[in-house]
Amino acid sequence: MSAGEFDYIRWIRGRTPGDPRVLVGPGDDCAVLAPRAAATLVTTDMLMDGVDFILADVGPRAAGRKAMAVNLSDIAAMAGAPTAVVVSAALPQVSPAARGEEGRTLAEEVFHGLREIADRFDVPIVGGDTNTWAGPLVLSVTVLGEVTGRGPALRSGARPGDWVFVTGPVGGSILGRHLAPTPRIAEGQALHRLVALTATIDISDGLTADLNHILEESRCGAVLSADSIPIHPDAMELARRTGRPPLAHALGDGEDFELVFTVSPADGAKLLREQPIAGLRLVKIGECVASGLWLEEGGSRQPLDPAGWVHAL
Amino acid sequence: MSAGEFDYIRWIRGRTPGDPRVLVGPGDDCAVLAPRAAATLVTTDMLMDGVDFILADVGPRAAGRKAMAVNLSDIAAMAGAPTAVVVSAALPQVSPAARGEEGRTLAEEVFHGLREIADRFDVPIVGGDTNTWAGPLVLSVTVLGEVTGRGPALRSGARPGDWVFVTGPVGGSILGRHLAPTPRIAEGQALHRLVALTATIDISDGLTADLNHILEESRCGAVLSADSIPIHPDAMELARRTGRPPLAHALGDGEDFELVFTVSPADGAKLLREQPIAGLRLVKIGECVASGLWLEEGGSRQPLDPAGWVHAL
Repeated sequence: MSAGEFDYIRWIRGRTPGDPRVLVGPGDDCAVLAPRAAATLVTTDMLMDGVDFILADVGPRAAGRKAMAVNLSDIAAMAGAPTAVVVSAALPQVSPAARGEEGRTLAEEVFHGLREIADRFDVPIVGGDTNTWAGPLVLSVTVLGEVTGRGPALRSGARPGDWVFVTGPVGGSILGRHLAPTPRIAEGQALHRLVALTATIDISDGLTADLNHILEESRCGAVLSADSIPIHPDAMELARRTGRPPLAHALGDGEDFELVFTVSPADGAKLLREQPIAGLRLVKIGECVASGLWLEEGGSRQPLDPAGWVHAL
Repeated sequence: MSAGEFDYIRWIRGRTPGDPRVLVGPGDDCAVLAPRAAATLVTTDMLMDGVDFILADVGPRAAGRKAMAVNLSDIAAMAGAPTAVVVSAALPQVSPAARGEEGRTLAEEVFHGLREIADRFDVPIVGGDTNTWAGPLVLSVTVLGEVTGRGPALRSGARPGDWVFVTGPVGGSILGRHLAPTPRIAEGQALHRLVALTATIDISDGLTADLNHILEESRCGAVLSADSIPIHPDAMELARRTGRPPLAHALGDGEDFELVFTVSPADGAKLLREQPIAGLRLVKIGECVASGLWLEEGGSRQPLDPAGWVHAL
């Protein structure tokens, strides 16, 4: 058992500081978290080598960072505050000869990546499950959080007339940004305090696909204004390589992990006037309507295909 | 998107009944759980095709059942009550031609297996993440629970003189029982009410390996009595095939998901006298000592290797 999972658990425990939110941390059958007054948020996302990252290209630390960041982004999309994380992992077996050193390096590097982002957002890793197998690296992160302010920011409250916003430029994240997204934790909470968010989501599948999730839950439609979509420089660069329009990349690429949200026109006007979120330019990209999903470009309105990244079953 | 993950999520939502513990169920960025007065338990376990089950042999429903049961077993090992579950999955892609039918069948069968066990223990599946990839089936389950009675039953409170118990016969689970374990949820809570559990764990790695986890956390030792170990008929059957002693299988095989626990001699005597857990025979298998892990057999005491199943990193 000298180089096995129990040594690794011991190594992790030695690196896990005390936290008033955590009564029992890694090393027992369950972690135990102190009771909290607010409602609990819970979200889980699994990332796989070859699908969500290419381990051979980016290395285990970047994989760990992404796995943590995309999960925290779902807490941000509820305007929540993260309180605890557990991680389960399937680590690829390295050769028996190299196992001692390389295997531990892989496991430790993944943990360093996870912790780097967890520390940045002040959330403790309280437990997990570490396995090895002949397959590729798989990381599954579950984040617990708590509701802030006036309750959870859901997808379901958008109404015709509401304005649609995005928290930053989108598209082309595959050029590298998808590995190091900034979950909009503080920004989500700040918006939630400042205005009445009627619907909120983070962009994982793609701007139109994720907006469409809001529209389905809210049972309304939206018109996006092509000129107003903030196109990331990466979308421009990617468009040069693919020959597709930069706007198509901005609308469809996904993994931007910016927030898309809707507010009343009065709240929307306030946000545009005050731009109250430091370091962020809030952009109005459209308005909700009774039904359908539309793109307005040069005075004409075309239906917009909400296709994004879909896992075919 | 017709046969994709969103249809699957919709299918799941249609099968998710309302629950007073759940404010927002599957379909938003996070699930939202009602606040609870007790401390929160959280545990996660990942199961992989080829390691924890052979999908081609057992089918997706059995894989789902096992993934749910082994996670609930960790809640049982804290004498806790499960309150909510999230599941992330990497599903193997089937051929494009068969995708519509077979892919959905796989995903739905996994869900049916998960739900079968979750329903039996009255715990709602509140969210998840469904992916497809070229690799084997991976299921990661995270269970939230709450502490009952006098607090969480930890691994760390055993003291020299305490008696060691197991909740049922062990060994040979690989013959089939490992796929359909009964998490000792009700039994763990009942024991916790009846006596002061000084340390508790569930048997996943193996009786000696898991007892050794208790001993390491409790900084003491134990002597097991060979004659008292309840050997499962499966261990006898497996021993006939392997040529190893049935006792070796009972001590080392693992995945029994019975509870191993320690109590004071007074509480231990009470349990033996009353056998208060319906449907279960509690067996005293040894006593805690100052240090070491020993097996007493025919009047002589031999050191016992705590080797169980260890994932080498």
